[in-house]
Amino acid sequence: MDPDHHNLSFVLNKPGDVTYEHRTIPQLGPYDALVHVHYTGICGSDVHYWKHGRIGNYVVNDPMVLGHESSGIVVSVGSNVTSLAIGDRVAMEPGIPCRRCTRCRGGKYNLCPHVKFAATPPVDGTLTKSYALPEDFCHRLADHISLQEGALVEPLSVAIHIVRQAKIKPGQSIVIFGAGPIGLLCCAVAKVFGAVDIVCADLSESRLNFAKSYAATQTYLTRQQTAEAAAADILRTCGLSEDGVDVAIDATGAEPCIQTSVHLLRTGGTYVQAGMGKSEVVFPIGALCGKEITVKGSFRYQEGDYGLAVEMLAKSRLSVKELVTNVVGFDEAETAFWNVSTGKGIKTLIKGVDVVDGPT
Amino acid sequence: MDPDHHNLSFVLNKPGDVTYEHRTIPQLGPYDALVHVHYTGICGSDVHYWKHGRIGNYVVNDPMVLGHESSGIVVSVGSNVTSLAIGDRVAMEPGIPCRRCTRCRGGKYNLCPHVKFAATPPVDGTLTKSYALPEDFCHRLADHISLQEGALVEPLSVAIHIVRQAKIKPGQSIVIFGAGPIGLLCCAVAKVFGAVDIVCADLSESRLNFAKSYAATQTYLTRQQTAEAAAADILRTCGLSEDGVDVAIDATGAEPCIQTSVHLLRTGGTYVQAGMGKSEVVFPIGALCGKEITVKGSFRYQEGDYGLAVEMLAKSRLSVKELVTNVVGFDEAETAFWNVSTGKGIKTLIKGVDVVDGPT
Amino acid sequence: MDPDHHNLSFVLNKPGDVTYEHRTIPQLGPYDALVHVHYTGICGSDVHYWKHGRIGNYVVNDPMVLGHESSGIVVSVGSNVTSLAIGDRVAMEPGIPCRRCTRCRGGKYNLCPHVKFAATPPVDGTLTKSYALPEDFCHRLADHISLQEGALVEPLSVAIHIVRQAKIKPGQSIVIFGAGPIGLLCCAVAKVFGAVDIVCADLSESRLNFAKSYAATQTYLTRQQTAEAAAADILRTCGLSEDGVDVAIDATGAEPCIQTSVHLLRTGGTYVQAGMGKSEVVFPIGALCGKEITVKGSFRYQEGDYGLAVEMLAKSRLSVKELVTNVVGFDEAETAFWNVSTGKGIKTLIKGVDVVDGPT
Amino acid sequence: MDPDHHNLSFVLNKPGDVTYEHRTIPQLGPYDALVHVHYTGICGSDVHYWKHGRIGNYVVNDPMVLGHESSGIVVSVGSNVTSLAIGDRVAMEPGIPCRRCTRCRGGKYNLCPHVKFAATPPVDGTLTKSYALPEDFCHRLADHISLQEGALVEPLSVAIHIVRQAKIKPGQSIVIFGAGPIGLLCCAVAKVFGAVDIVCADLSESRLNFAKSYAATQTYLTRQQTAEAAAADILRTCGLSEDGVDVAIDATGAEPCIQTSVHLLRTGGTYVQAGMGKSEVVFPIGALCGKEITVKGSFRYQEGDYGLAVEMLAKSRLSVKELVTNVVGFDEAETAFWNVSTGKGIKTLIKGVDVVDGPT
Repeated sequence: MDPDHHNLSFVLNKPGDVTYEHRTIPQLGPYDALVHVHYTGICGSDVHYWKHGRIGNYVVNDPMVLGHESSGIVVSVGSNVTSLAIGDRVAMEPGIPCRRCTRCRGGKYNLCPHVKFAATPPVDGTLTKSYALPEDFCHRLADHISLQEGALVEPLSVAIHIVRQAKIKPGQSIVIFGAGPIGLLCCAVAKVFGAVDIVCADLSESRLNFAKSYAATQTYLTRQQTAEAAAADILRTCGLSEDGVDVAIDATGAEPCIQTSVHLLRTGGTYVQAGMGKSEVVFPIGALCGKEITVKGSFRYQEGDYGLAVEMLAKSRLSVKELVTNVVGFDEAETAFWNVSTGKGIKTLIKGVDVVDGPT
Repeated sequence: MDPDHHNLSFVLNKPGDVTYEHRTIPQLGPYDALVHVHYTGICGSDVHYWKHGRIGNYVVNDPMVLGHESSGIVVSVGSNVTSLAIGDRVAMEPGIPCRRCTRCRGGKYNLCPHVKFAATPPVDGTLTKSYALPEDFCHRLADHISLQEGALVEPLSVAIHIVRQAKIKPGQSIVIFGAGPIGLLCCAVAKVFGAVDIVCADLSESRLNFAKSYAATQTYLTRQQTAEAAAADILRTCGLSEDGVDVAIDATGAEPCIQTSVHLLRTGGTYVQAGMGKSEVVFPIGALCGKEITVKGSFRYQEGDYGLAVEMLAKSRLSVKELVTNVVGFDEAETAFWNVSTGKGIKTLIKGVDVVDGPT
Repeated sequence: MDPDHHNLSFVLNKPGDVTYEHRTIPQLGPYDALVHVHYTGICGSDVHYWKHGRIGNYVVNDPMVLGHESSGIVVSVGSNVTSLAIGDRVAMEPGIPCRRCTRCRGGKYNLCPHVKFAATPPVDGTLTKSYALPEDFCHRLADHISLQEGALVEPLSVAIHIVRQAKIKPGQSIVIFGAGPIGLLCCAVAKVFGAVDIVCADLSESRLNFAKSYAATQTYLTRQQTAEAAAADILRTCGLSEDGVDVAIDATGAEPCIQTSVHLLRTGGTYVQAGMGKSEVVFPIGALCGKEITVKGSFRYQEGDYGLAVEMLAKSRLSVKELVTNVVGFDEAETAFWNVSTGKGIKTLIKGVDVVDGPT
Repeated sequence: MDPDHHNLSFVLNKPGDVTYEHRTIPQLGPYDALVHVHYTGICGSDVHYWKHGRIGNYVVNDPMVLGHESSGIVVSVGSNVTSLAIGDRVAMEPGIPCRRCTRCRGGKYNLCPHVKFAATPPVDGTLTKSYALPEDFCHRLADHISLQEGALVEPLSVAIHIVRQAKIKPGQSIVIFGAGPIGLLCCAVAKVFGAVDIVCADLSESRLNFAKSYAATQTYLTRQQTAEAAAADILRTCGLSEDGVDVAIDATGAEPCIQTSVHLLRTGGTYVQAGMGKSEVVFPIGALCGKEITVKGSFRYQEGDYGLAVEMLAKSRLSVKELVTNVVGFDEAETAFWNVSTGKGIKTLIKGVDVVDGPT
């Protein structure tokens, strides 16, 4: 086989139809690094493409390599690279913006309309042996952080961006809906940002137990009731001020959680929508007006989010290794999708091609 | 009659049932001023109380004096008053906060839970001969600004607060739904704040003509279509960037306008909900996430809003007198409510008790 | 003796001349509380009045009770008080603003020109048996926080305000000049705000050892050298980026520290001047321009600063008890001034009148 | 002569020693445009290089083409250019950042340490026939804006950045020291941003007369006096609040103006240092602390500054043509330097090579 075609990859052909293929090893530009991918996590959006072949307007028309939550080791670098060396262990930031548009120039590269984002059609993802990306999108891991933890830097950066959108300040109270990876990481990040009451709400008691042991200060088991009743019940049972909380984050996309988020807030509070769900929901706009609430979307991550993620891990301000509940081989990649799909464990990682276990 | 009871007032007893009554002339505290009310404007919320006896959770249980958009002349002052003198012509800010709660101390007195707001039950309003309020809620008018214009300072302050919530910046584009007093004033304020494309959208062609002559740079006649189609049509027909506008303001409360507002925005844009309507609407939450939009409520006014309103009038940065379409006598007060109720004219003012026409 | 005159107080007559006097027990307004003062800390400005009778334009013309860093127990409350009860243990916020001026209404009551601040002439301070202040300036202490710690809430609030002025964000680096109480507390607060590199610089090795054991992550012993050289040396020896640090705080007022602060910063960094010293210094304005630096003063505390201080203590996010190095009886009050004046210990507290030791 | 060497340029060899040389016409990258330079303005920093061969750490070691305030017409474009076409009339933004560093990615490309800035050594400037730059640094001019006005977009962008640094808000008051091009443009920009009292201070009465006719609402003739006295005198004679102004901008670099700026401010006010002068000044740090003032440097321009400049010209929100007092031919380029050096006129433009007069 042509040595340039030794790049074994996990490819989605159409919904539910995946294969392994050899792809070309990418050519490096002067500022690029080639990374041997070591671990890749799978999230809900990966599963959505795998199952449905699309998310909203993004449609998989041609076979596409999956995966975008990855870490690895640098194996070669372009001629102008100065910040990386072969052998560096890195978290791989998967969205490369154009660097030239108004959003990029203005500090919001997550909103770049020209971004090439791994495993968002038609851009191939990171479930491949070797992946090329610009040096400034490779984030070096501290020596004591494993490559498995490195694969968690992507969802951690998502959580950092969400919490930053919420502009949470030390001493504030927050309720986070959803005890999946993003909701849990939001709890941990909120703690680092100084929040003092960090309530995690979910419909799974076992997930809430994990949340409590991980980063939440209080938990709430959601159940069937009106949004107003749920909000009042959360404030009361969690010992929060009846004036409401400073911040609410919904990491579920579920309509009742979105509605409850608004009713939970104090006047002038902020709610951030983190989880994608239905494109439309019934929304309590009257409460938004009467309480002068701020609502924000949160989309991927900006400059500083990945950097803060690796820094907080390096300085042991938070920990992500507790979230890794399964690791499967590259040849069992589809198992990871089944795990997420069926809610098995918290985060399943897929080992890279030719990755051997041991101290990473 | 007891001279202390010479305070003729326009009282709402129950929905649709109004009377004139003599009330007590208020006692002044050391920091208070007594103002002879000269002109009072009527807005949609006044009409709502008049018709339905309630707005949301605010219910008129006992007879209440109506009116809160007023100007007048200071007739006496308390012992500690230093910033006002008898004869001063003032705009009267109608919501007196507690000055002691977290919101007041933190600079957001509009969110004070203890605020006493004129003509919000159970607090009596300004459709009375003499009204007392603290000196710092009396805003002196420039000599060349009439007391009729002074009565418009209230809705102008509402518009200023809305536009401030939108954090609009010079050079930006904005679409404002609604060509009633608030929507129109938002257009004028957006211009002062440096917006360059100021689109006013409404379903009345005559109102749009007025908007164009007053402060809008473009107008759009709304019609039956999907929110996405409306957004695309507005961008195209008004010559705006197809990437969307920086800011959208809804001053109607109508569900289609709210939805269109979100679809009109560029990534990272801001939409402010100004008009109260239904307590719940179907909301395009997916677009909010994907475009990382900020949504804000706007509630009354904060420190600086009234001050900026009188300053912009004093320095002739904008004009409000065009909005006064009718003036009725105090004895015809209910006519003003009918006018608003039936959409007659833009702003109807009610003359105060014993107010004689002439240069004011 | 008239029972109304049982308020034993520590009074400064003129520079260096102090006496004990019986003063009147204050009358309570409807929103006031009377607090039996338990502990009072002494800071550099107290000593300055004691020694020189003035600070800048503030001059002690008439005898004045000293002290403003106090905690105590509520002994009676006014008729409208709802948030406090007799027996409540509180930190006492010593500056009461007018609540009516532009600054107060705008959320910056620390800038109120009419503020009455304890022990700032001509306002009497808290070194008295019983002190009256409004309920919203009494901050309840958690059960596990002692009244000695409560007296440290004042300098902690000063530090919180300084760090807030610096707008420090998680992951950032900071250098703080001065290992006195304010500098040390700034280190602790910066940690709570998420700073990762927290360098404390001082000319006392023993103070630096304390700083390291308390909250600093690195320390630097200052010595005679140019400001540029000092900045370069700090960055190098403390293992910081040669691009400079995100934030520098000067809590000394010393000219070399101020100059070094500016040279330490990265482009776009922020330096906050916390310590008062000479009214004029030689300042590197060229570096300010070329690096587009932000410089801020920090004056006392605003809404939320005291609240965050008691909350962080309540939630054990930081600790202040390590700073209490001496406690003297009310009859030995002047000893505390000598201690600060001669640099003995870190913080000396003065016990209140009739305060008995034991679990507080 | 080799046609690739037809690029006539105005070159500084060493202080005071300039020549005309033929340089190579630059090769275009895929995103670049080649612009035929039509007009170039000269500013104080150009003159500084011309006279002294250096500014601070920037030293002209090798011959360097001068000029960086230019406009021109696009004559060819790279293969990937989509936003420009041959014949487009553009303002040329002269600093090209690396697009990859933390500052660039974070939205502050003016602070990029790798920026290549025209006529900042060792980068050649725009006093050349044809100049290449990326398409996103070419800003199209509205049809009614001349290329002479286009050359003023550079100082206008400097002024916009300064005023943005000041975060000036509608209704505020501002004092601007210096009635040179930058100070004057700051006056005009402050007006667009909604400032109502715009005082220009200078030591030249004729310049003040121009300022008054152009954009200032008040003027002040500076004279020998203490900074405190000057501040008090400005407030009094210009009819400003004795509490001080919201914003002060120094566009002179002169120590007395810097000191007066601080004393002019109200508590919580902001002063921006715009003009480069001595590297160190005696600074009133005590007033900074006591009034909790914010001081900011302002360095060149960021994303949005050039864009706003061309937009404000396009929408006729301000005008710059009044500032053009002299236009000289390319062969008389040194005259422009003499003009700035001797304070002759406000702005002298140098015509480009082969530029013919007429409607531009």
